[in-house]
Amino acid sequence: MLEEFYIEPFAPGRIQWFGVDLMNIADLDTPSVVVDLDVLERNVRHMAERAGETGVRLRPHAKTHKIPEVARLQLAAGARGISLAKTGEAEVFAAAGFDDVFLAYPVVGAEKARRLLALSDRVRLAVGTDGVEGASSLGGVFHPAGRRLDVLLKVDCGYHRVGVSPESAVEVARRIADLPGISVRGVFTHAGHAYLATTREEVDAIARQEGEILAATAQVLRGAGLPVEEVSVGSTPTARGAMAVEGVTECRPGNYVYHDASQVSLGTCGIGDCAMTVLATVVSVPATDRAVLDCGSKTLSSDALRPRPSGHGWILGRKSRIDKLTEEHGVVRVEAGESFRVGEKVRILPNHACVVSNLHDRIVVARGDRVEGEWAVAARGKVR
Amino acid sequence: MLEEFYIEPFAPGRIQWFGVDLMNIADLDTPSVVVDLDVLERNVRHMAERAGETGVRLRPHAKTHKIPEVARLQLAAGARGISLAKTGEAEVFAAAGFDDVFLAYPVVGAEKARRLLALSDRVRLAVGTDGVEGASSLGGVFHPAGRRLDVLLKVDCGYHRVGVSPESAVEVARRIADLPGISVRGVFTHAGHAYLATTREEVDAIARQEGEILAATAQVLRGAGLPVEEVSVGSTPTARGAMAVEGVTECRPGNYVYHDASQVSLGTCGIGDCAMTVLATVVSVPATDRAVLDCGSKTLSSDALRPRPSGHGWILGRKSRIDKLTEEHGVVRVEAGESFRVGEKVRILPNHACVVSNLHDRIVVARGDRVEGEWAVAARGKVR
Repeated sequence: MLEEFYIEPFAPGRIQWFGVDLMNIADLDTPSVVVDLDVLERNVRHMAERAGETGVRLRPHAKTHKIPEVARLQLAAGARGISLAKTGEAEVFAAAGFDDVFLAYPVVGAEKARRLLALSDRVRLAVGTDGVEGASSLGGVFHPAGRRLDVLLKVDCGYHRVGVSPESAVEVARRIADLPGISVRGVFTHAGHAYLATTREEVDAIARQEGEILAATAQVLRGAGLPVEEVSVGSTPTARGAMAVEGVTECRPGNYVYHDASQVSLGTCGIGDCAMTVLATVVSVPATDRAVLDCGSKTLSSDALRPRPSGHGWILGRKSRIDKLTEEHGVVRVEAGESFRVGEKVRILPNHACVVSNLHDRIVVARGDRVEGEWAVAARGKVR
Repeated sequence: MLEEFYIEPFAPGRIQWFGVDLMNIADLDTPSVVVDLDVLERNVRHMAERAGETGVRLRPHAKTHKIPEVARLQLAAGARGISLAKTGEAEVFAAAGFDDVFLAYPVVGAEKARRLLALSDRVRLAVGTDGVEGASSLGGVFHPAGRRLDVLLKVDCGYHRVGVSPESAVEVARRIADLPGISVRGVFTHAGHAYLATTREEVDAIARQEGEILAATAQVLRGAGLPVEEVSVGSTPTARGAMAVEGVTECRPGNYVYHDASQVSLGTCGIGDCAMTVLATVVSVPATDRAVLDCGSKTLSSDALRPRPSGHGWILGRKSRIDKLTEEHGVVRVEAGESFRVGEKVRILPNHACVVSNLHDRIVVARGDRVEGEWAVAARGKVR
């Protein structure tokens, strides 16, 4: 039971600087990643409510935050299990007490299969697959151990990254279902192309399509005698629309806990719904039209703004944007009428929260300006 | 003395997998960052030899590798001290015994100044500055403690990121030299615009300019009665050219230990001079013209190829390139005549080695195909 693993996620005043408790964000050294807990909790609640309205199980993708404390808030709000991408992430979350994990990734190879076999003693586990070769490399480890691994077949709903076409789903699912050591639990998809949609209407159309293509594929598989328990969709921009589609059983949004400038640009949320900001200091003002912040690509990542690349994050309360990033410098093109002074601290809404998480060992948790503590990004950097 | 901190950087066979020593790269699970020690040692030696020929002190920028073991190889080859960007990086290297550090970054603020003051007990320390406000925030901590901090004034040699113009250098240097708690040790610059040069001739011209502008600025400062002991240039593409300029005393290249696809594109080196590759597995082949690797932006970063953005790393031995990166997927556009199979392992030369280092807690060290051990990327993620 998760309850027994639940620990108070933070204690006020845990951040100390030369023996003094830091209580205000403005006192933090920079760059610091700050997550507003009020906004985070509201985001977690709203998505859980939407899932409740539609009767769809919520299995949030914890790759966004990689923090067991955040996933506990998600479960407490009604989520059933979590999604992850990497075997190493599943190991971290299993050690923190999570007992229902779906690796929404085409896991391949005996090395990872052995670790999954060990995990499956204490975790209800499923992994993604989109082909016989990959699934076979997993079954080849589970079968000799007298065990079966649940897989979900990835279906391509238009993103064209991984996944089988809806037309070939029956044939591939049959061959996978025949593999020793493998059970097909269902189908899943991800409408990543929603991140390239330039209008909200386009996003909504992709969301409906995501749900409808997957639900229809599930029906065809059932008609062919294949058991399909789970019909799993999910991305933050498409989650609300795809959950409304009849036949969808599960949704796996990740980014919604934090949101970011890309979600605002896509119309998924407003700036006030963004929980993660980066606190930075102006370290140089070499010209009237240029200021430099102490956050570069090693803090903010080089990920582009979606759907249209433009700059490297928004400086809250300013029109000036970060124009150029090098490893430790964020170069701001200062708009006419604005100015920055050396030593001044600013807050930045990053382009892409999921990759910012992955750059930092710890994040600061706050409510408004009040620092509440720190969380370790426990599954950060678990690339394997 | 560094010698007493020196430990054997690795022991053969330290990587185990289910109790068995891994001895061949092909046996590694993926994605794994692999550094070839033969190439690394050769790169370290060649740059040290070049510095020796020109009589310039080499102070490599350790932000590229963030690994004390690599910096020890650099010192053993003749480097005098190291460069870093972040106070937290300096703390890691000081703890590992490094006693001569230049933070080549406009460090600002009392928080970092207090940590630098503590460090300065055991480290010969200097930091960068490009203005009175920043330097004053450091002096304001050192002076009351009865100490002085050495600074180098950053001069803009054409990159237009941070730094004072050569014309304003005397005035700014005078005001900084008058600050309590601050001593001006010299001047430094960085010709980052060399990374945008599209011909080797252009890179070489920028290198000469880098050295000449800084050496001339140093002469003007000396003429104005300001002490300028250090005249410090440096980037990997410009290092050889800039070191040849009369009056340059120090050079701070970083990337040369590993090199990467951008350095090859710039003509700095050949592919055989690249020490860092990423071993990845083909996890999906959804179409004849598409294959997907288990390395995305959380493994390779989203940094663009320089000087001309094109793809996300080169697959060694293949014409096919990584066309698109998402967090955990590298999508390959398969060229006609090539094919990939699920489970196959490939090696990727990344666009930018410095940011790849910063994504990984550990890297594998090898000689050819033989695994020698692992190094912890000890200063990874020290953003403050």
